[in-house]
Amino acid sequence: MSAMARTQGSHSEITGPRIREAALRLFAERGYAAVSMRQIAAEVGLQAGALYNYTPDKQALLFSLMRDHMDDLLTEWRARPAAGTAQNRLEDFVRFHIGFHLERPELVFIAYMELRNLTPDHFAVIERLRRDYENALEDILRQGRDTGLFDVADTKLTTLAVIAMLTGITTWYRPGGRLGVSQVQDLYCDMVRKAVAA
Amino acid sequence: MSAMARTQGSHSEITGPRIREAALRLFAERGYAAVSMRQIAAEVGLQAGALYNYTPDKQALLFSLMRDHMDDLLTEWRARPAAGTAQNRLEDFVRFHIGFHLERPELVFIAYMELRNLTPDHFAVIERLRRDYENALEDILRQGRDTGLFDVADTKLTTLAVIAMLTGITTWYRPGGRLGVSQVQDLYCDMVRKAVAA
Repeated sequence: MSAMARTQGSHSEITGPRIREAALRLFAERGYAAVSMRQIAAEVGLQAGALYNYTPDKQALLFSLMRDHMDDLLTEWRARPAAGTAQNRLEDFVRFHIGFHLERPELVFIAYMELRNLTPDHFAVIERLRRDYENALEDILRQGRDTGLFDVADTKLTTLAVIAMLTGITTWYRPGGRLGVSQVQDLYCDMVRKAVAA
Repeated sequence: MSAMARTQGSHSEITGPRIREAALRLFAERGYAAVSMRQIAAEVGLQAGALYNYTPDKQALLFSLMRDHMDDLLTEWRARPAAGTAQNRLEDFVRFHIGFHLERPELVFIAYMELRNLTPDHFAVIERLRRDYENALEDILRQGRDTGLFDVADTKLTTLAVIAMLTGITTWYRPGGRLGVSQVQDLYCDMVRKAVAA
């Protein structure tokens, strides 16, 4: 890190994001429980004491990473036009979910595996945001069922099945591998469309 | 723990499984990195030093939990009759996978999230076992495609999609909840059958 970067780093609008990036990287590599505030501070070139000017504790860092991840997901989804048939909207959801998650494999990994390390009140906030996102997909499935386009016996269960199937891509997808993102999106669109079709 | 249990516990055929159960419980609760050999020993009423009579280290415990989990999965799957149409075999796979995994939520959780904590040689062994299991499903999909029953553009990708969808059930399923295991199996069978149908 250059001296200039270190000087700029004293401004919270730069240091805050750098602390969050370092925490994300370390949590993903070693797991939340195995990472200390001292290690996070060292990663961004701060004394351990100085880190507390930016965040009250490690739990607050974990929670803000997970909450902002869910906020970004919901904000980006809601910014898309919601018009069209249930089939169009479902296809849009599948493409959006895959694209969003493949861009952030570390956040996806942490969002799933560090849930147990959230305090109960933080956990409740993240659960609520997850429900909001699940409800967005369930609304599409209900619209499709109510208009006769979809045959879905249990919209809640199908919602969870589709999200698990799509998020699972992050465990094996590698850029430069056999399939590109848009090929993966096409193939999953086909599977999901058939799975819910009337 | 009673004095009798402590005495019996000195036999490795009893103590070995108890150590593995304690390690599984602690790894699932706190994460592999946050658990010490001393804590595992305390959980089964052993001195830390005595634990090393049963296992060389924490890594060996993690590896044996994950390897035995995959061995059990493959052994149970291969014990089932493989005859029938691809549709019958696919339905059998879906029911088997759901039933097996819902009985072991802690092992499923660890098998996914502690992969990064395996040494490279241990990781390679587990990856090989996972491939063997994925190949069992992919064989069924190929059989269905080759006999004209299934329309599957990419059997490898569909294999990963189906396994992710089914394993995802362990993250939300709770005994005594809205749906029983056999209802969940029925609903997922319907979705998977439709997703791959010609």
